[in-house]
Amino acid sequence: MAQEIPYKIYLEESELPTQWYNVRADMKNKPAPLLNPGTLQPATLDELSQVFCRELAEQELNTTDAYIDIPEEIQSFYKMYRPAPLVRAYCLEKALGTPAKIYYKFEGNNTSGSHKLNSAIAQAYYAKKQGLRGVTTETGAGQWGTALSMACAYFGLDCKVFMVKVSYEQKPFRREVMRTYGANVTPSPSETTAIGRKILEEFPGTTGSLGCAISEAVEVAVGTEGYRYVLGSVLNQVLLHQSVIGLESMAACDKYGIVPDIIIGCAGGGSNLGGLISPFMGRKLRGEADYRFIAVEPASCPSLTRGKYAYDFCDTGKVCPLAKMYTLGSGFIPSANHAGGLRYHGMSSTVSQLYDDGLMEARSVEQTAVFEAATKFARIEGILPAPESSHAIRVAMDEALKCKETGEEKTILFGLTGTGYFDMVAYQKFNDGQMSDYIPTDAEIAASLAKLPQVD
Amino acid sequence: MAQEIPYKIYLEESELPTQWYNVRADMKNKPAPLLNPGTLQPATLDELSQVFCRELAEQELNTTDAYIDIPEEIQSFYKMYRPAPLVRAYCLEKALGTPAKIYYKFEGNNTSGSHKLNSAIAQAYYAKKQGLRGVTTETGAGQWGTALSMACAYFGLDCKVFMVKVSYEQKPFRREVMRTYGANVTPSPSETTAIGRKILEEFPGTTGSLGCAISEAVEVAVGTEGYRYVLGSVLNQVLLHQSVIGLESMAACDKYGIVPDIIIGCAGGGSNLGGLISPFMGRKLRGEADYRFIAVEPASCPSLTRGKYAYDFCDTGKVCPLAKMYTLGSGFIPSANHAGGLRYHGMSSTVSQLYDDGLMEARSVEQTAVFEAATKFARIEGILPAPESSHAIRVAMDEALKCKETGEEKTILFGLTGTGYFDMVAYQKFNDGQMSDYIPTDAEIAASLAKLPQVD
Repeated sequence: MAQEIPYKIYLEESELPTQWYNVRADMKNKPAPLLNPGTLQPATLDELSQVFCRELAEQELNTTDAYIDIPEEIQSFYKMYRPAPLVRAYCLEKALGTPAKIYYKFEGNNTSGSHKLNSAIAQAYYAKKQGLRGVTTETGAGQWGTALSMACAYFGLDCKVFMVKVSYEQKPFRREVMRTYGANVTPSPSETTAIGRKILEEFPGTTGSLGCAISEAVEVAVGTEGYRYVLGSVLNQVLLHQSVIGLESMAACDKYGIVPDIIIGCAGGGSNLGGLISPFMGRKLRGEADYRFIAVEPASCPSLTRGKYAYDFCDTGKVCPLAKMYTLGSGFIPSANHAGGLRYHGMSSTVSQLYDDGLMEARSVEQTAVFEAATKFARIEGILPAPESSHAIRVAMDEALKCKETGEEKTILFGLTGTGYFDMVAYQKFNDGQMSDYIPTDAEIAASLAKLPQVD
Repeated sequence: MAQEIPYKIYLEESELPTQWYNVRADMKNKPAPLLNPGTLQPATLDELSQVFCRELAEQELNTTDAYIDIPEEIQSFYKMYRPAPLVRAYCLEKALGTPAKIYYKFEGNNTSGSHKLNSAIAQAYYAKKQGLRGVTTETGAGQWGTALSMACAYFGLDCKVFMVKVSYEQKPFRREVMRTYGANVTPSPSETTAIGRKILEEFPGTTGSLGCAISEAVEVAVGTEGYRYVLGSVLNQVLLHQSVIGLESMAACDKYGIVPDIIIGCAGGGSNLGGLISPFMGRKLRGEADYRFIAVEPASCPSLTRGKYAYDFCDTGKVCPLAKMYTLGSGFIPSANHAGGLRYHGMSSTVSQLYDDGLMEARSVEQTAVFEAATKFARIEGILPAPESSHAIRVAMDEALKCKETGEEKTILFGLTGTGYFDMVAYQKFNDGQMSDYIPTDAEIAASLAKLPQVD
């Protein structure tokens, strides 16, 4: 019954999803609600609407509707760069000599270089619909900032990006892509916000952090008429938008009779992983099918595998709602030699709950092993992967090599979230043999977790 | 009869070309043959085979076979990143308010970032088949070097790239991508070749040029057992391989009943333009259809619009065969402020002959106008284009705006050859308002042309 499987499966436009899938509707244990940082009570729609666009705040709180319509305008934009291909990694299988069948969903075929655009365009759309003038956000490596800049250019919205200072200086090209899309990019911490000035006073030479950039972006959004704050990961609304990854993957699998045994995604804040696995997880939750899910995180920032499931702050300035999540503590910063992205201290509440319920696995990998996999993959499959994506490649290869030993013909699906064109400093380090690994000690993690807020 | 046209047309794998199209077979006036630089007589197969792989030399000389089979192995590799989508630029049409229908063939969805991979994989295949150990080449901006590195990694061939020194230093990321694919990258001019040492002695501070890098690459290829030289543009064999662009475009057009009135491509050495237009030109040459073809070149390097149709050297060291082409003289170097690629002094013999026969038009555009178009296109269509590709965008927009004035519903097809991720230095110049134009004077061009070799 299954047709011959092409190298790359592109769905027809008529087969593209017209609704996002909200996995929370099928979860027996819902993810814990966001808390108002002032009252430590569940944040209400009105409270969230001060920070986020109203409809996005509604999506954030919606744990009951399994499907939410994708507005026409967003569907149109999706058609400019989607469907993303589901690729059969024939060459990689051959090179590994594995009986496993390996597929990857490639989200890098757009200028932002990653899956981030799936949610950026949705968030920009709702901001525009609400009549806002602009949005603010933070960016570290720059994929999210680029995606949001593109989305804002499309809808004619102002876009203010706070970019972690060290990235601003070390990744001038990322910055220029955002500027080309008309965004205003400020290195963080900056003199333009109260929290930025405070941090600069306390730590004059600081090169910034994601948590600090979030605080600055939120401050500007809340304090400027006609602006809201938008975020590229962690939130439930982001996982909702990213479900297009999983929905397309599932439609392509169903069309060709492909049944994945293992589904693998890299995990920083959880946006890609959550989006990829959601619809498959839905089937598992409804008892319609079973899959193994594996979240892959860096050994240097191991929130799922070594963190604590607890309420924590999402930002340094503690102005954002608190989230219950697997966390290393909001003060945790991966060691300076960490090059491979996925450096957020916490993890999406939804992913955290699914993991806590034993519905998925997690694994941590060291960065030299990740870059080995990345380089091998680039040479064999022709795509230069983002370091983040390469965490998933590493584990997909490992699983395929296990199949080689056991002779099992498992079907492995992984998310290839993006491309590494702006990560060549890290690749150079690896090419020059200068890359090393660092695994935080138990004492370091314990010290960071000791500062968790007291909630419950 | 035509189906509704999707944003992006992806052919099925079964619809992909299995043969390249050789436009020379349908040309009444064949392009002039390459000349041996020593004897100034037409280069023979044996002579060419000293420099190029044998089968590639055969393709170079083949002016009679209209179709040449694409070997299975190359077809397989093509399937890893092809078909390239034919995109309907609905958003651009709307933004311009034009009744014209605009399509572009997007060749940037692969790690080399451009169409160059189409020929790189073919040349690497024939090198492997011949039992060679490796190949040498030159690269300027780096797209070709990257493509060749990828192709060589795939076939396990050694790859030595001479990269123009100024690019080597200013584009470290391009260099790292090549290294990631296992290539050996040397800044040119270098101490590793006789010609390099000679040039360094004469011009100690030189930052290199494409013509010089070609000479070094050829010297190493000819002087090393088991190596040949490969080139990414200009040659007939390259246009042959690049015909996949045009063949796919034509198949997609035919499938959906699209009939282009105007076909536009940027032109440096002619690889993309020649590949895109070849099959359409074939129809025109056979009297089956008519199209307007427009080659777009930089005003700062205007070989078609202001050069001379004559035999000239292809490289600085004068070790390559001579080609009859529209040329500005092999000593011509575009002004230092030129940022937009397409800086080769000559033009493919095939394209030159077609142009000389009045079968196509040429237009030159200034770089600030090109980057304006590029930025607009990026914001509207979501793809960050390479500066080279943006020459075609500029003229496609201009033609669409003419339609707005006249009310004509013309169908415009242009080649979007690649992405600009590694060209952010040029974008930054433009974003900062620091980009300027330079048009060479008649006297400058005449002085360069005065040094053309005496042939005929």
